[in-house]
Amino acid sequence: MKKTLLLLSLVAAPALAGEGKWTPQQVLELDPAWLRAQGLQVSPKKLWDPQRGTGLLAGAVNVGGCTGAFISSTGLIITNHHCAYGLIQEHSSPERDLLTTGFLASERKDELPGKGARVQVPRSFTDVTAQVLAAVPEGADDAARYKAIERKQKELVAECEKRPATRCQVATFDGGVNYTLVDSVELLDTRLVYAPPRGVGEYGGEEDNWMWPRHTGDFAIVRAYTAPDGSSAPYSEKNIPHKAEFFFPLATEGVKPGDFVMVLGYPGRTYRALLAEEMAERQSRVYPRMRDVYGEAIRILEEEGEKDAAGKIAVASVLKGLHNGYKNAGGQLAGLKRGHIVEKQRQSEAEVAAWIAKKSASAQGAATWASAVKAREELLAAQQATAKVFEREFLLGAVQRLARAPAMAVTVSRLAAERAKPDMERRPDYMEREHARIKDRLEREQKNVHLPAEKRLLTAFVRRAQALGADERIATVDKHFGKAFVEKDVAAKVDALYAGTQVLTLAERLKMATETTAQLQARKDPMLAFGLDLARELEAMDEAVDRRQGMALRLRPSWRKAVLAHAGKPVAPDANSTLRVTFAKVQGYAPRDGAVYTPQTTLSGMMAKNTGEDPFDVPERVAKVAEAKRHGAWADRKLKDVPVNFLSDADTTGGNSGSPTVNGKGQLVGVNFDRVWENVANDFGYNPEVARNVNVDVRYVLWMLDQVENADVLLKELGVRKNSPVAAEIR
Amino acid sequence: MKKTLLLLSLVAAPALAGEGKWTPQQVLELDPAWLRAQGLQVSPKKLWDPQRGTGLLAGAVNVGGCTGAFISSTGLIITNHHCAYGLIQEHSSPERDLLTTGFLASERKDELPGKGARVQVPRSFTDVTAQVLAAVPEGADDAARYKAIERKQKELVAECEKRPATRCQVATFDGGVNYTLVDSVELLDTRLVYAPPRGVGEYGGEEDNWMWPRHTGDFAIVRAYTAPDGSSAPYSEKNIPHKAEFFFPLATEGVKPGDFVMVLGYPGRTYRALLAEEMAERQSRVYPRMRDVYGEAIRILEEEGEKDAAGKIAVASVLKGLHNGYKNAGGQLAGLKRGHIVEKQRQSEAEVAAWIAKKSASAQGAATWASAVKAREELLAAQQATAKVFEREFLLGAVQRLARAPAMAVTVSRLAAERAKPDMERRPDYMEREHARIKDRLEREQKNVHLPAEKRLLTAFVRRAQALGADERIATVDKHFGKAFVEKDVAAKVDALYAGTQVLTLAERLKMATETTAQLQARKDPMLAFGLDLARELEAMDEAVDRRQGMALRLRPSWRKAVLAHAGKPVAPDANSTLRVTFAKVQGYAPRDGAVYTPQTTLSGMMAKNTGEDPFDVPERVAKVAEAKRHGAWADRKLKDVPVNFLSDADTTGGNSGSPTVNGKGQLVGVNFDRVWENVANDFGYNPEVARNVNVDVRYVLWMLDQVENADVLLKELGVRKNSPVAAEIR
Repeated sequence: MKKTLLLLSLVAAPALAGEGKWTPQQVLELDPAWLRAQGLQVSPKKLWDPQRGTGLLAGAVNVGGCTGAFISSTGLIITNHHCAYGLIQEHSSPERDLLTTGFLASERKDELPGKGARVQVPRSFTDVTAQVLAAVPEGADDAARYKAIERKQKELVAECEKRPATRCQVATFDGGVNYTLVDSVELLDTRLVYAPPRGVGEYGGEEDNWMWPRHTGDFAIVRAYTAPDGSSAPYSEKNIPHKAEFFFPLATEGVKPGDFVMVLGYPGRTYRALLAEEMAERQSRVYPRMRDVYGEAIRILEEEGEKDAAGKIAVASVLKGLHNGYKNAGGQLAGLKRGHIVEKQRQSEAEVAAWIAKKSASAQGAATWASAVKAREELLAAQQATAKVFEREFLLGAVQRLARAPAMAVTVSRLAAERAKPDMERRPDYMEREHARIKDRLEREQKNVHLPAEKRLLTAFVRRAQALGADERIATVDKHFGKAFVEKDVAAKVDALYAGTQVLTLAERLKMATETTAQLQARKDPMLAFGLDLARELEAMDEAVDRRQGMALRLRPSWRKAVLAHAGKPVAPDANSTLRVTFAKVQGYAPRDGAVYTPQTTLSGMMAKNTGEDPFDVPERVAKVAEAKRHGAWADRKLKDVPVNFLSDADTTGGNSGSPTVNGKGQLVGVNFDRVWENVANDFGYNPEVARNVNVDVRYVLWMLDQVENADVLLKELGVRKNSPVAAEIR
Repeated sequence: MKKTLLLLSLVAAPALAGEGKWTPQQVLELDPAWLRAQGLQVSPKKLWDPQRGTGLLAGAVNVGGCTGAFISSTGLIITNHHCAYGLIQEHSSPERDLLTTGFLASERKDELPGKGARVQVPRSFTDVTAQVLAAVPEGADDAARYKAIERKQKELVAECEKRPATRCQVATFDGGVNYTLVDSVELLDTRLVYAPPRGVGEYGGEEDNWMWPRHTGDFAIVRAYTAPDGSSAPYSEKNIPHKAEFFFPLATEGVKPGDFVMVLGYPGRTYRALLAEEMAERQSRVYPRMRDVYGEAIRILEEEGEKDAAGKIAVASVLKGLHNGYKNAGGQLAGLKRGHIVEKQRQSEAEVAAWIAKKSASAQGAATWASAVKAREELLAAQQATAKVFEREFLLGAVQRLARAPAMAVTVSRLAAERAKPDMERRPDYMEREHARIKDRLEREQKNVHLPAEKRLLTAFVRRAQALGADERIATVDKHFGKAFVEKDVAAKVDALYAGTQVLTLAERLKMATETTAQLQARKDPMLAFGLDLARELEAMDEAVDRRQGMALRLRPSWRKAVLAHAGKPVAPDANSTLRVTFAKVQGYAPRDGAVYTPQTTLSGMMAKNTGEDPFDVPERVAKVAEAKRHGAWADRKLKDVPVNFLSDADTTGGNSGSPTVNGKGQLVGVNFDRVWENVANDFGYNPEVARNVNVDVRYVLWMLDQVENADVLLKELGVRKNSPVAAEIR
């Protein structure tokens, strides 16, 4: 009996408690006893019903690339403030600045509808691996293989999206070991119910981003609506609150250190299945070059932003993105080093190789695993080949993140080129289903343009391109700016590009987005001419990347299957924007020698940081209640204060923003909104010493709604009794 | 029996364990049972012998404003690297850069003698209160009172210093409650024995200054020599090592969290006896203005230093001092706020006032304490009066810390004015006994001059002076630069001052330092003319300050006596550069919400911080041994690593640099070298939550000497057996 248990736990328990972004299907493969021991109180079957392909986990929904969570049967969704930002911004004006003041709908009719706010609720997951692989023609080369797989994916999506209000994707797991069709209902009418003031929702700003100790109320509450018959429908006065099948009741008692929690959501992308050498490439080239290129762009934007107030506002959004990327790249480098992640991956590959060598002693084993060894060798060789074009491809890839005008010129140029093809043959990013999003982006970007910064950014790009080696030239730059950097020539040419272009005129740009290549050429717009050439060069690069990806889709599954077989127990696949769950514990960490971070922060800590100046500017109505220590029912017994944020060792990444953090009973104890800086390289490997995600404590949410906002109607809807016994006891 | 003990402890135990810089005399007034309970294992009588006026505490010596400690009977002294800096620098050259490489004398004959390195060993402490007070003539006003007290102090010092190689001071305790004559032997021949490389001794540099976690080996070892007969003598080949009567053997087993320690030394100045309103003045005016003025000077020096390499070197030393002051002022402000120090002092004064009111119910009490109440009122009134001249006096006081040329001009001008008087009537800073030090300074300063920075600093001073209110004018600035700031006029005048001056020529300046006022005037040197006028204005200001001090010496003792009587147990007086001891425990602290600092750091932590670039550049020979984990006998059993620095809650301030930190047996466990930033405002009040001093762990010292330097001869002299049982056990 004991032996069986041991065997079971060997088979079905993961190596490290916190490690693993498990797919819903995998939850059922994990040892239920282990899950119970961790702290899961509901049956795993309640989390996920394999028959229906849905379950409690589906209470976590996709909110425009972020995660959100149903917290009532009446369509209320909690997510991050930064995820609801667009929705709040849409209703803000200098006269009624909801970003600054926050917003509370006192009744349903006051809730604010959002233009682009969409919520996707997962409906089913279907394994389509066989179909996808069968689509690859006999004898296809890597480019053809990639096209065939992409085509099949598009077809499956198109077929799936024939149902009304449906959004589908074919997700690739483990580098191609598995393909799954994810079918979601898209709810089109989402309205803002509550947003805290910016001084709460963004408290600490860029300075505290990725940091602990943290005191940020990064949450907001929205509500999904449907047509009166329950079907998805765009905004209408007749719509009714969505009846959520699965939702997470608020855990008014909160959490304490050591408690079990689960974080559910849509993590975007991780790289743990890369070979060690592929990780080393990122460590030695990609992140250092990101630091270099983004660092330069940051300096330019900051300098130009300092010169006038309008400039400062214009560059703010791009600057925020660059700062985030810059800090992230630094964190990746520090974490890769600290966690010895490449070395560990190298060792783990050596173990798999040794295991294969042993297996191969038998004829059958040799036949099974020979391809895995060969696949790894080919991947390594390919890696060395791509290293040679790295600088060129990195720079081309950065075009979209730097100067706005050439980026826009490229976008309209590529749109025109792709529109000439039948929809199913276009690159996925430019298919008909994406056009509305592209138009939104082209419109929104208008406010980010600051001419002096633009010109310097484009000049910096040209200078870098002209410095590339002989076999890495960017032909478009050579053609438009010459082969060597001569400052005044480049400056004159850049001036001419900006002087002669209509790309920065919103109406013209939107018109361009509907034109053919010939029409764009006929405009004789110098920036467009540059963009058209660059678009062609980017298209050629994308073709080369597709070919490499076709190769990877051919090779990596062989190697990964060996890795998975060697592991002999469930291994969570890399994140790919599909629904996952991670099992964790509330706990702090030691960021460095001589320092320990405790896992909870408090209102007092928030007030101690308050300088009265951005980004540490607690709004007066919040400060007043905090200073008076009016904790209501929301103080932690041990802390004797209202907890603001907490840490757990959950395995998260970008896309988990807004993820519900729930206890063993499936009740909401927090909202995930960040990872700590030491944990950024988590994307390459889970380091239990520093793998910590940052959550808003649900008691801070409740304190804000109850003590600060007096949102009694909303609290009642959330099932919170203000004078609960818990409250009385703490008082 | 029990009752007696309780009473005793009420009478003789301090309120907070770590609080109090106790005088040697006070140690004998503290409850021996309480001291034992804290962890003191030797008899308090061994610490201090009231008959002889000396004891074990006198093993702590004054090393040029720092503290040092005898660690052998053969004159070896351990102090901070930054305290031995001048001595190391004196023997450094580009070819043989001891600051960078470090230094170890392999034999006694290789030890490096120092020009200005003097060590003062306390010999006796004599209460001279009655004599000092008797010197004040009947009916003297405040100015006369101050002069009379100062005069008496000078006479006592002169009389005392008639003995050869003797340095004396009359120290004022508790604002004038007590005056004590401190008599010390001055040892004139001090030689460098060991200095770690800069990458150890200054590891972390300005960035880690005042910070924790810390990994700095801020220690050095020197040796005091005497004439063959044991008397103090200047350097001679015939000299022999000083036979130290009291010394601290090294505690090879180190310390652990919770351990009792004592820190002995010469804390410079604290302000805990100030009235709450006087503290508030510093909080609201002094430190903010320091931040303002020093901050501006830092910006100027950094900008000018960036322009060329030579400039960078020239401004480095002044910049370091300004940075330190700037950071300190910030720490004072943060700590005053965090510790609610002013509010606590206000409350404590209210309690004393209430106690007096109660006492005054009796006729006798009324007579005794009426003067205390009146004294406090007068002090408060005086405080309000001085607030009105604050800006002017602050600016005049800053002259010496900003541009070098006007500072030097002022110094030679004041020297000339004072030299005209009989020695005993001069200001103490300009008496004959200070001349050698002044000359040293005038010489040393040559390397700090950087003309472009000079000019901008002087311009900044002028601009600030010209902006003062009508009743706070600085006449010298008005005369030389006009009443309003006109940029180009001031610039031209500043240029002229620098173009026409010889103050910055070393030989001329040293000559000036010997000239009369008439001779200086005859030079027609424009910078000197400015300096002569400014010196006169400073002299007038000093007279006003003297008068105020005379008033304070009259009033404050009345109030302080009431405070002491109300306390009813020993209260440690403010620091005044005399020998003190503080009783403490090794422990960490919580710097802010969500973070805890542990009290020990390690070699691994030092290596984790190593970037290979200044200020985090571990020397190769150190890194090699650390990375190989060659811990020798010096690893901590629990940390499994060599401890580098540790914290305790000792009550220290500037001047405690180099203080021996010793265990209950009187053995050296560390060398104090800093306080944490959160503890800077400790100067105004002890906050047990954050009162932490930073020490080099003696095991790091031993590891450096043993494993890195192979200093076997030195270790043997220190009585350290490398293969001690402790060592074997840990291995």
